[in-house]
Amino acid sequence: MTEFRRLRVALLGAGAVGSQVADLLRRHGDELADRAGAALDLVGIAVRNPDAPREADLPRELFTTDSEQLIVGADIVIELMGGIEPARRDILLALSSGADVVTANKALLATHGPEIFDAADQVGASVYYEAAAAGAIPIIRPLRDSLAGDRVQRIMGIVNGTTNYILDRMDTEGSEFADVLADAQRLGYAEADPTADVEGYDAAQKAAILASLAFHTAVPLEAVHREGISRIDTQTMDAARHAGYVIKLLAVCERLIDAESDSPTGEAISVRVYPALIPREHPLASVHGANNAVFVQAEAAGNLMFYGAGAGGVQTASAVLGDVVSAARRHIAGGVGVGESTRANLPVVPIGRVTTRYQITLEVSDEPGVLATVAGILSEGRVSIATVEQTLVTDDESRPAVARIVIGTHTAREQDLSDTVDRLAASGVVGRVVSVLRVEGT
Amino acid sequence: MTEFRRLRVALLGAGAVGSQVADLLRRHGDELADRAGAALDLVGIAVRNPDAPREADLPRELFTTDSEQLIVGADIVIELMGGIEPARRDILLALSSGADVVTANKALLATHGPEIFDAADQVGASVYYEAAAAGAIPIIRPLRDSLAGDRVQRIMGIVNGTTNYILDRMDTEGSEFADVLADAQRLGYAEADPTADVEGYDAAQKAAILASLAFHTAVPLEAVHREGISRIDTQTMDAARHAGYVIKLLAVCERLIDAESDSPTGEAISVRVYPALIPREHPLASVHGANNAVFVQAEAAGNLMFYGAGAGGVQTASAVLGDVVSAARRHIAGGVGVGESTRANLPVVPIGRVTTRYQITLEVSDEPGVLATVAGILSEGRVSIATVEQTLVTDDESRPAVARIVIGTHTAREQDLSDTVDRLAASGVVGRVVSVLRVEGT
Repeated sequence: MTEFRRLRVALLGAGAVGSQVADLLRRHGDELADRAGAALDLVGIAVRNPDAPREADLPRELFTTDSEQLIVGADIVIELMGGIEPARRDILLALSSGADVVTANKALLATHGPEIFDAADQVGASVYYEAAAAGAIPIIRPLRDSLAGDRVQRIMGIVNGTTNYILDRMDTEGSEFADVLADAQRLGYAEADPTADVEGYDAAQKAAILASLAFHTAVPLEAVHREGISRIDTQTMDAARHAGYVIKLLAVCERLIDAESDSPTGEAISVRVYPALIPREHPLASVHGANNAVFVQAEAAGNLMFYGAGAGGVQTASAVLGDVVSAARRHIAGGVGVGESTRANLPVVPIGRVTTRYQITLEVSDEPGVLATVAGILSEGRVSIATVEQTLVTDDESRPAVARIVIGTHTAREQDLSDTVDRLAASGVVGRVVSVLRVEGT
Repeated sequence: MTEFRRLRVALLGAGAVGSQVADLLRRHGDELADRAGAALDLVGIAVRNPDAPREADLPRELFTTDSEQLIVGADIVIELMGGIEPARRDILLALSSGADVVTANKALLATHGPEIFDAADQVGASVYYEAAAAGAIPIIRPLRDSLAGDRVQRIMGIVNGTTNYILDRMDTEGSEFADVLADAQRLGYAEADPTADVEGYDAAQKAAILASLAFHTAVPLEAVHREGISRIDTQTMDAARHAGYVIKLLAVCERLIDAESDSPTGEAISVRVYPALIPREHPLASVHGANNAVFVQAEAAGNLMFYGAGAGGVQTASAVLGDVVSAARRHIAGGVGVGESTRANLPVVPIGRVTTRYQITLEVSDEPGVLATVAGILSEGRVSIATVEQTLVTDDESRPAVARIVIGTHTAREQDLSDTVDRLAASGVVGRVVSVLRVEGT
């Protein structure tokens, strides 16, 4: 057997992913050494409580509460604690001690990415984070390296498994959001506090990371427009199905021309997370259950799609271990780490200046002239109508008749659309704005 | 503007891909410099005839016939000539002069990969080849890096656009192979001599490259079992459709346990290219036209799929330029190149020891006892029947009645299957073996 140089690997955190990483590192150690060209010695696992039960059978003597001592002696530090602190402090300590860092911490990268990448640059170390976006799906290296010679125009990603699981069941079973969520919590697909997933915070963090890579621009999390799926009801789902669409929570990262931007070329980007209608025949429409997929449009490469499991302990562990092998190879090869590419520094436009297509569903009183009034308000608001469908909702003699109007628009500016919807709501002829959804992927 | 270190980039070949690479390098030079952290100066293009017409508008003074002089002064050499010689000689010269090499040359890598990777190792240079398999689809880095900590079990790829275009049109239009091929040639989807595509040689080269990466084993092209699609007729297509399948030319790379292998664990691999039946609901079934897709099953990551354009000058140029940026970043970072990982060194089993499921279509005389005889021969040959469908083909009083039997088998060993089919053909009750196809993706 080849005699390899030995590298000291420190693990911070032993939850679902951490336990799997430790287990795989130990079980496949020889194989990983062959691939890395270096033996990967797991020298310790820093946790808050060394005696807590773990998902994998790991020797008690590996566990320590002294993360600092563990980090300072390591060549590669794997951070799988999640959250901002102490993850941030530990990663900065690891980098300043000359270790390469592997992390799956999307919350930290989306909020403190530049600080961490700068720290890595200063010492010539590398930060790997394939597991921080779209779980096991290799998307970081394709964006960072494979597409580095191309111009990404647009990314549309289903990057949160929990919300895709919920929306998929609502779509296929016709169930209500609250019922599916409760079931998802029971089955372990959703957390007890589902806010991070359901309200799009998790997807927004991943969108910030993907957009930063795709557009070579540090995208702060605050610049990501975010809406969740808790307002989506069965009525909206049914209407979408009827119109040939499916509703998905999408992370959209887009390169656009924005006249009001101060970039020299007028180029800017938009990064946004919201539930959107996509046509049934779009490849993203057939992403079911808790799976993830990222659809990329690039100037030269054309349309690409990456598909796989978005979460799960062992799936995410695969991405983490791929990074560990990469870090080990770099350690052996020598040289400094390759820093993040953010020199394009494109402005992120506010959501009001973004243009998309919309589907607006209104309840109106079924009286002569109502559609003309609605159409007039849209036209004044610079929102051009592509399709209209009006149906009678109530036909109960005792109450005034109510009609439902579903309007599909051409591309409109978000601010114009939103002002127009306000005017519709205040117009007197509109009883209720049932839903306003963006249409993507057409 | 940042002052960058300047890197000298030499291009060998200016065909469809080379012209696009040169054009994009020149047009997007500033942007690429920002990303690479180095200015990429295209210092020359070596071609046989500097005055030949090109797809892009490139200055005459860039062209030279003296590839040797161009190579020796370069930091990065892009080889896009194709073929074995002089590509091999030029790449070895580039590496020995200390340049990093970017190539899309699958024929060369599949036949002389180890020689080239060894040469790179010896001088600490790197060879990048994202464009050598599945065109613009980023598949090399995912296999080489992202999945380096996982165990790939199986790859099923549609890696040849021409054959997928032909099979897709045969499937959707019911056209004959020869007609669609002629049309594909007219439209530029197939070469004047279509052998490399249609007979699976191109797919076999890509399969060798993908299997080498996935299984950390140098897979020689001779070890790849190869069959083409020219035998597929409309009758076979129709039968496949009727049974819920579609026929695709698949590159299958599989990890298996082989009792006769001399590897310590009994682990071995199989690499094969052939037209196979896949279920209509499999993700690969919906890959249409000249697109490519690679489906990867890994122990920890689960199922992944990568989808995109398989060929085309500008699409392939995207992959080449991503490699150029990576090479430039490595040049700037310093350190030696990371060599190929081939230490697993698994044996490649001959096709006879591979097991799959099969669909056998026979024409038999419609007489009592024929099915019993056929079933008996299969049973003796250790081929277990999963499904049988018998239909009457001719019902013409003047001739003996002919029936068609379609047999779906359970998993069987290729050698057993092939011997059994020989015995069926010689049995006297079988008039004709219409087709024998493997079934994958079930």
